[in-house]
Amino acid sequence: MVDATLDEAFMRRALEAAKDAAQHGDVPVGCVLVKNGVFLAVGENRREIDQDPTAHAEVVALRRAAASLSGWRMDDVTAYVTLEPCVMCAGALLNARVARLVVGALDEKAGAVGSRYNLLSDPRLLHEVDVTYDVLASPSVALLQSFFSSRRS
Amino acid sequence: MVDATLDEAFMRRALEAAKDAAQHGDVPVGCVLVKNGVFLAVGENRREIDQDPTAHAEVVALRRAAASLSGWRMDDVTAYVTLEPCVMCAGALLNARVARLVVGALDEKAGAVGSRYNLLSDPRLLHEVDVTYDVLASPSVALLQSFFSSRRS
Repeated sequence: MVDATLDEAFMRRALEAAKDAAQHGDVPVGCVLVKNGVFLAVGENRREIDQDPTAHAEVVALRRAAASLSGWRMDDVTAYVTLEPCVMCAGALLNARVARLVVGALDEKAGAVGSRYNLLSDPRLLHEVDVTYDVLASPSVALLQSFFSSRRS
Repeated sequence: MVDATLDEAFMRRALEAAKDAAQHGDVPVGCVLVKNGVFLAVGENRREIDQDPTAHAEVVALRRAAASLSGWRMDDVTAYVTLEPCVMCAGALLNARVARLVVGALDEKAGAVGSRYNLLSDPRLLHEVDVTYDVLASPSVALLQSFFSSRRS
């Protein structure tokens, strides 16, 4: 059952993580993982600060959640991401068997969950993820625009 | 310029890494990263031993290479992988801007570089990767078959 108020509350937490990313010079994207309605892990984009090409918010959060659960399977887990996942992160969510994804803003250039590809809804792959779109998209877009405009100036 | 003898030599090193994965109970897949003809990093599938859903051979190798280079950009890097990358790993190779990929065996079920998808040759995405197929595919298939048949018995 989808609880819109709960979805917004967890997405607000993901937006806080996105702000943390911007603080250390990374594109502001955040991800929160929730299992059966209970907070599990949070991650923010850390590519620049860690100089790690795989350290997108979703991968960071999944690694933390797996460490916390002592297990790689994210059954009954919902991922809240402020920006539509890229190919790598969509694949990471599939590999972790995440049950549901809640997306903030769309990424028309590199999004892999509806924009460029729709990788989470392919019955030929080993797993599918239920997706909810457009939860607090506006504050996510505002954060991204502010980050890129401050970098240009 | 592609040097077939060099390609086979680095793929043999990736096959050794795949054997390491099987030793710790992980599906035998290995990856070697090479920059301008010089060995950079190796990784094997560590999902089970690390209980990390993102710890496929390619991601493990990319993280080690980035640490070794103190930088996330894999310009001029060739990745040798014993099995066709999945969606997550194809995305990780894209995000890291790997220049070239050499593939051993195809993965008809989950491969994202020709089998299910062809994610490394999409001009709409931010980067493309030059791909060479079928380098020492047979020993890779033999390793995988031996691993799964020993698990069944």
